[in-house]
Amino acid sequence: MELPASASIIIALSTSLAGIGFVGWQLRKILGYDPGNEAMRAIAAAIQEGATAFLTREYQVLAIFVIIVATVISTFLQWQTALCFVVGAIASGGAGYLGMYVAVRANVRTAAAASHGLHKGLRIAFGSGAIMGMSVVSFSLIGMTLLYLVFNSNPNQLIYITGFGFGASSIALFARVGGGIYTKAADVGADLVGKVEKGIPEDDPRNPAVIADNVGDNVGDVAGMGADLFESYSGSIIAAATLGATLSSDSSAAFVGLPFLVAAVGVIASLFGIFMVIGKNQDTTQMSGQTTNLSQTATSSSRIGAYFMHFVAKIDENATLEDLLTALRRSIWGASVVVLGLSLIAVLVSGVSINYWLVILVGLIAGNAIAYATEYFTSYTEKPTLAIAKATQTGAATTIIQGLAVGMMSTVLPVLITAVAILLSIWLGHRADGTITAGLYAVALAGVGMLSTLGVTLATDAYGPVADNAGGIAEMSHLPAEVRHRTDALDSLGNTTAATGKGFAIGSAVLTALALLAAYVTAAKIDNLNILGPTMLPGILIGAMMPYLFSALTMMAVGKAAHEIVLEVRRQFHEIPGLMEGTGQPDYKACVGISTESALREMILPGSLAVVVPLLIGHMLGKEALAGLLIGTMSSGFLLAVMMANSGGAWDNAKKWIETGQYGGKGSDAHKAAVVGDTVGDPFKDTSGPSLNILIKLMSIVSLVFATSFGSGLLNF
Amino acid sequence: MELPASASIIIALSTSLAGIGFVGWQLRKILGYDPGNEAMRAIAAAIQEGATAFLTREYQVLAIFVIIVATVISTFLQWQTALCFVVGAIASGGAGYLGMYVAVRANVRTAAAASHGLHKGLRIAFGSGAIMGMSVVSFSLIGMTLLYLVFNSNPNQLIYITGFGFGASSIALFARVGGGIYTKAADVGADLVGKVEKGIPEDDPRNPAVIADNVGDNVGDVAGMGADLFESYSGSIIAAATLGATLSSDSSAAFVGLPFLVAAVGVIASLFGIFMVIGKNQDTTQMSGQTTNLSQTATSSSRIGAYFMHFVAKIDENATLEDLLTALRRSIWGASVVVLGLSLIAVLVSGVSINYWLVILVGLIAGNAIAYATEYFTSYTEKPTLAIAKATQTGAATTIIQGLAVGMMSTVLPVLITAVAILLSIWLGHRADGTITAGLYAVALAGVGMLSTLGVTLATDAYGPVADNAGGIAEMSHLPAEVRHRTDALDSLGNTTAATGKGFAIGSAVLTALALLAAYVTAAKIDNLNILGPTMLPGILIGAMMPYLFSALTMMAVGKAAHEIVLEVRRQFHEIPGLMEGTGQPDYKACVGISTESALREMILPGSLAVVVPLLIGHMLGKEALAGLLIGTMSSGFLLAVMMANSGGAWDNAKKWIETGQYGGKGSDAHKAAVVGDTVGDPFKDTSGPSLNILIKLMSIVSLVFATSFGSGLLNF
Repeated sequence: MELPASASIIIALSTSLAGIGFVGWQLRKILGYDPGNEAMRAIAAAIQEGATAFLTREYQVLAIFVIIVATVISTFLQWQTALCFVVGAIASGGAGYLGMYVAVRANVRTAAAASHGLHKGLRIAFGSGAIMGMSVVSFSLIGMTLLYLVFNSNPNQLIYITGFGFGASSIALFARVGGGIYTKAADVGADLVGKVEKGIPEDDPRNPAVIADNVGDNVGDVAGMGADLFESYSGSIIAAATLGATLSSDSSAAFVGLPFLVAAVGVIASLFGIFMVIGKNQDTTQMSGQTTNLSQTATSSSRIGAYFMHFVAKIDENATLEDLLTALRRSIWGASVVVLGLSLIAVLVSGVSINYWLVILVGLIAGNAIAYATEYFTSYTEKPTLAIAKATQTGAATTIIQGLAVGMMSTVLPVLITAVAILLSIWLGHRADGTITAGLYAVALAGVGMLSTLGVTLATDAYGPVADNAGGIAEMSHLPAEVRHRTDALDSLGNTTAATGKGFAIGSAVLTALALLAAYVTAAKIDNLNILGPTMLPGILIGAMMPYLFSALTMMAVGKAAHEIVLEVRRQFHEIPGLMEGTGQPDYKACVGISTESALREMILPGSLAVVVPLLIGHMLGKEALAGLLIGTMSSGFLLAVMMANSGGAWDNAKKWIETGQYGGKGSDAHKAAVVGDTVGDPFKDTSGPSLNILIKLMSIVSLVFATSFGSGLLNF
Repeated sequence: MELPASASIIIALSTSLAGIGFVGWQLRKILGYDPGNEAMRAIAAAIQEGATAFLTREYQVLAIFVIIVATVISTFLQWQTALCFVVGAIASGGAGYLGMYVAVRANVRTAAAASHGLHKGLRIAFGSGAIMGMSVVSFSLIGMTLLYLVFNSNPNQLIYITGFGFGASSIALFARVGGGIYTKAADVGADLVGKVEKGIPEDDPRNPAVIADNVGDNVGDVAGMGADLFESYSGSIIAAATLGATLSSDSSAAFVGLPFLVAAVGVIASLFGIFMVIGKNQDTTQMSGQTTNLSQTATSSSRIGAYFMHFVAKIDENATLEDLLTALRRSIWGASVVVLGLSLIAVLVSGVSINYWLVILVGLIAGNAIAYATEYFTSYTEKPTLAIAKATQTGAATTIIQGLAVGMMSTVLPVLITAVAILLSIWLGHRADGTITAGLYAVALAGVGMLSTLGVTLATDAYGPVADNAGGIAEMSHLPAEVRHRTDALDSLGNTTAATGKGFAIGSAVLTALALLAAYVTAAKIDNLNILGPTMLPGILIGAMMPYLFSALTMMAVGKAAHEIVLEVRRQFHEIPGLMEGTGQPDYKACVGISTESALREMILPGSLAVVVPLLIGHMLGKEALAGLLIGTMSSGFLLAVMMANSGGAWDNAKKWIETGQYGGKGSDAHKAAVVGDTVGDPFKDTSGPSLNILIKLMSIVSLVFATSFGSGLLNF
């Protein structure tokens, strides 16, 4: 028995429509929660306004970018690819907009709910993250499946759809790089004047950059992360389908359909995982010290959730960080189990070798293993981060050295896991089909498997900034200490899930880039990619250099943008009477505007490089050199991204560990050294590191889209 | 007309014997200089004793290592390769010993000569560096040519000689990695207790770690750098000869001989360059304000020097740093011009295409271009370092971020230069001979060209620590301020040449590693190195990870070793009565012993990884995966090494810039931030960064030596 590709497409389309249904239902539910008192609502409105201002401005610039690139594509390639490009950009942009829209409304509701209990707060924040997660997978799947159906009779349909991936990558570039610069510039700018010069605490409403800082959390960690993973998700499916179509076997239709089927299965599994966290009966959450059991939840008002109650995490008011983490982890594991079960059926129905199911298993395990390795290296309950905390005792220099060493050391496991996953996937594919292409198809499918539960993994991730914002709002509106205490607990949890999310993002970026590279080589009709060929090594070296150049530019961009904020904040403290005393009103908008403009300006150079360099190398040195370039960027970028993300995460948590009272606690010399580490880590983990994911994927997708245009280059060998 | 290979070999042997003659003559001359007063001699004796203690201990450990590896080689490969391995180790070890021997005797004589004038000091320090430089090239050439002649009739002679390269690599591992850990552990240990805790100045004789620190300068920058470049020098010649032998053309004998001829030409050119600096008449140097001209030098006692007087740099007592730098630069340029002229004759005599002469030109230009790029990014007269200095005003965190960004940015030019050099070399070789192997032979030959002037470039480099030591001795023996002022000028110059030397070392390491990789692929009989082959990508990823793991281990090693020194220095200040008051006598030997033992202990793990991982991957995943591993390590290691070396150099010079009185000068907050940068930079530029050169080359040469032992791996595709 064999399933036609279009049947798989229609199944994927249907499940993603169900995902949209969930998003609508959850959105209504969250907006229905209490938005807090007047002070809270005023602050939230300012954040909403700032976020909207940033997104509007970003989308204006993006619109110009999209029009230019679409024109280039339809001039040099086909109008169909240009159309797909535009649809990809709109789908990713739409998901990002929706995620931000709810995040900046869920924050104040989370703060209000945290007045009543920990789980209530968790549910709203997580529900907001779930909207982001499900929007990303649903919008991506709907876009791709509809385009597939539109071009159904065209033999180039999959080539056109690569344009969708390019569109998604373009949004990711703006959201991740621009957003990354925005968020850290606002953060550093706010801290440098507020904390350091004026001695006022974090999230103090007198600080003119405080709203920009809170907007930044959403811009970077909601919209940025969402767009990044939207790109990975779309890219891995496109790459798998493209490679599947070239498999010489009779069942190439099944190979094209399988990644869509796995994605469809993942949508269902993600919904299952999400309900494991949010499905708990609202009415029982305030019974402090008690745990939920099946009989209680039988009375649940949330009917869909009730079916899953047996799996629902036990969270009560005395829940520790560990309990909350367990709840989130169980939801991801639950979703993984569902994916495995359903994808076994999918593989059987598709009529392909059972090896491809094992490949999905490999992808899922690898994704989770990388996430755990990341957690080990960045959590302050573990040795690596504690070693950094210890190093703070001998000053800032040893703190930095130890942090960099930890970051470098933390690359070993993710690389080994990825290498083994690639090796196993290729081996399994090869065993099933006997060709190298089958092996590469298997790698792409492993990527699809890894990302299949994205709906819920992204939910655990995008929930963080909502909790962080909630804490800021609680602080600024002077809510009772216990509320802030609860939002802090949620925020801590968010830091851990953000770190693992980053590991997941880079791991999936590498698999996606690799799959796109394989698709590129196939599309460019490169028969033999001899590594000692005349132009390969220069290509590899230049490729390996790209992440360094890109990181240098983004790190310096943060510095420049932050400097502009510092000047503006200083100006306001100087010129606005009574600002320091709390009687004057700071001009939040001015800071938001400066962050926005400088972030968009500073991303132009690194962003252009990511698009232009592959085209330049491909045309100047030929298509083989371009393949070398992509391999160099992928391998070097993977390492640098993991190192930067994990050094940054570990520094952050080493500081937090000291703030729990270790080595003299806040204000001690050790703490000062830890703050230096944390400040260095900020652009590492929130700007440059994550931006490398985009660089890796964007360069690959640009090469794939323009694959047919490259020749043998200018040098004649 | 065509030259037989053995004729080239004999020419190379003869010129290197001339090199040895120069070494003996110069050694006698330097030892004849005034070794200063009693206090100076006592300090110098302590440094000599410490250096000997370190070398003796290191060579003991090395002897065991060499015996074990030689046994392994003769068991699994051939006894001839094992013999070559031992000879390579002895030759490199001998050059290192000689270089150290003279450096720790030239230091005190430089200090004494600096009492009389700047150029006198320069000449002794530079002469000492010249002994190191000429020993390295001569010992390497003598060893290889003799082994070639011994195995003259054996068709495997070149395969055996790869063992020589492995022997040289083993010494480099100990000298560069062990030495790098030693030097920074002693430096950091001495500073942490001396400067920070006790508030006594640098180079204060009361500090028990002061001798270990001075020994460390020689261990790291003389013996370490020398062994590093000995390895590159030997490796590039071996790789070129090995590839030359496989060229299908009729003139393969000429191709084998050419690298030796180019090296021979380089020996002559280096001697020319060296005399441009040291050839000035001794009797005229004290005529302050006057410059040397041809008529004065006609009376010169140094007869060989007299012929070159027209080119001799004009150095007088009022010479600025820029003048001194110009003198050294001119010597390198002079040598380059000689190499180009003579190697044109060599190419013509060999009867090979003129393209190969162009390749030598490409190598020479690339080496110098990388050195200049390095200088631009690390000199405090240029923008990048000044930007770091500016960033110190906003604290340690921005200093670190800016320094890392500068380091990352500084990778762009060296990578582009190397990529273009590889591309041009391959293109020229390809044009001349039409095969891929000819192109790779050309790359190896470019490496030989780049390193041909090593005798003089290493002299400009190994001179630095002698000047540094001279300053320390002047300080400790309370010589007049003007003497210290002169040694400081010499030391500053040394810092600049050390930075460019590091750029040169990494650039040559990459070309050598690439040539060795090509030789490995040929020797392992790999026909097709498809980059998308089943095991290549995992190989590349693991390879790209190795430099990160290696750097993490070496950085942590410095931390651990420094910690032991700190404890010992604290103990001595605590237990030895009157130490702080200057009446007690510190136990220098104890600190030297601890540095030695901990450095040798801490290098075991990273060192073993460099040898074991290629063997493991080659046997487990097969010979193709091993090629991928080498490419990954080479590209990722190149980037990381350049970044670390240049960040470190730039931080160092940013601090020095502030110490000239900028931004508040010494003791200001900006200076404190700059010190943090400099301290982070220390293991970057002196331990981890340079150690990566060794990693890259050692992994390649291990693979080449064991090339025939690898099969298709355990996974069956």
